[in-house]
Amino acid sequence: MSFSSPLIINLAPTGMVPVRSQSPHVPLTPAEIIADALACARLGASMLHIHARDEQELPSDDVNIYAEIIRGIRAQAPELIIVTTTSGRRTPTVEKRASSLYLATDVKPDMASLTLGSMNFSREASINAPDTIMRLAEIMQENSIKPELEIFDLGMVNFAKILINKGLISPPYYFNIILGNPGTAQASLLHLATIVGDLPPDAVWSLGGTGKFQTTANGLGVLMGHGVRTGLEDNLWLDEGRTTLASNVQLVQRIVAQADALGRSIATPAQVRDMLGLSKRAAI
Amino acid sequence: MSFSSPLIINLAPTGMVPVRSQSPHVPLTPAEIIADALACARLGASMLHIHARDEQELPSDDVNIYAEIIRGIRAQAPELIIVTTTSGRRTPTVEKRASSLYLATDVKPDMASLTLGSMNFSREASINAPDTIMRLAEIMQENSIKPELEIFDLGMVNFAKILINKGLISPPYYFNIILGNPGTAQASLLHLATIVGDLPPDAVWSLGGTGKFQTTANGLGVLMGHGVRTGLEDNLWLDEGRTTLASNVQLVQRIVAQADALGRSIATPAQVRDMLGLSKRAAI
Repeated sequence: MSFSSPLIINLAPTGMVPVRSQSPHVPLTPAEIIADALACARLGASMLHIHARDEQELPSDDVNIYAEIIRGIRAQAPELIIVTTTSGRRTPTVEKRASSLYLATDVKPDMASLTLGSMNFSREASINAPDTIMRLAEIMQENSIKPELEIFDLGMVNFAKILINKGLISPPYYFNIILGNPGTAQASLLHLATIVGDLPPDAVWSLGGTGKFQTTANGLGVLMGHGVRTGLEDNLWLDEGRTTLASNVQLVQRIVAQADALGRSIATPAQVRDMLGLSKRAAI
Repeated sequence: MSFSSPLIINLAPTGMVPVRSQSPHVPLTPAEIIADALACARLGASMLHIHARDEQELPSDDVNIYAEIIRGIRAQAPELIIVTTTSGRRTPTVEKRASSLYLATDVKPDMASLTLGSMNFSREASINAPDTIMRLAEIMQENSIKPELEIFDLGMVNFAKILINKGLISPPYYFNIILGNPGTAQASLLHLATIVGDLPPDAVWSLGGTGKFQTTANGLGVLMGHGVRTGLEDNLWLDEGRTTLASNVQLVQRIVAQADALGRSIATPAQVRDMLGLSKRAAI
């Protein structure tokens, strides 16, 4: 596998679901997201998976909010890899899901999420019909935005191969494998091995886990993957017993501690750009 | 595994999708469905997975159509195990999906399908949110109808365990594992082994495959499973090259030939009722 390569840390600080009443640590406003992203980047996060929220804390497809977040991060750390969500859980039309993909050059995301199938989260369905996925991939291709391919179960790997056969995605392919939702693949060695064994050549993969499976999944990512995906999007708690709310900084610190203990170096944004074939952006 | 037990043949003759213009052999009217079901039962089909269609050939939740089909089958073969669909692909509300579960005693289905998650078929999403699945399971429990648990990927097995923990389904559990959709688990040994290895104790499982994967999946079911699921719902063609349209009778004949060649006997409806703990119905 890839344990000799430096470790990608992909941070998902906000997500669609958590609100202020659930945790004081979830960054919701552009200023909060920018500050958290930069603090985590100083610790080693190289990729930032961004969800915009409106003033009512709800998920938003407002491009001005995305632009404000991306501009704020790039003003201080232009080298970071910015990934916007195209989640359809609250934004059903393709064009609304794709809004951030049309941002102008200075605030254009480097990458954007692409969930490769329909699935259930704990409480709701996430609907990504085949034609929606293909259209989003096409818009990303037209706008030179690399997909962050989200894998929750075996079939989604197969659908990645269909996109490859149709010429809708290009190598190297970046995958987030996210384990532990009640309705998708679990944080077991056999599930992970089956998914990873099915990945196409030229796959770069990070591993995340939801809820109490985050720590285990991240540890497996540090050991066996190209990277980890972590952040409050997947889990609000520092401990499995749910006694202490986590911050994004603490979750990244835990990854860094795991990597230190396991002798794995942390990838810089420039190294990740190189691994993924992304255009360079100068560090300040 | 179970190769010493007699083989369950679960026939899905119609499905949601195929219409007369695609195949002259798909049974669409109650009379056609009854005739096909009885012909296949004479060959060895013991379970019949029924979808009702309206006069425009479209999927219907009309209980009168279901009642007509079930009455017609039971008039000649009361011992057969009748399974109605609760698919939501064209019928989004839970109550409409559940309509056949409220049929009166003489035409009440023995079982009903319960797809354990959201997923993509070739061209569209099949949406089964967690609360929908739990409500359908509850209605089945209230009406003493056994679920036919439909498994398309790893996460759906995990969701079965959640239903078990909630007391919403009872052993023995009957699973249809259906492989080969582009967006779900594939007809590979590793995918099948991973799914089967995760099944709970007291699981009885049949194996089906969609499109060109039907023959392989059915053969694996004959060899390694408690049963097979076959029928024109999953595949319209007799050959992988798609030169000859199949009939349900031919698909069942193929299973019987595989079973003969592999030394496996075919289960009678009474044997399947015994395996699944269903109440007995006298043969005529």
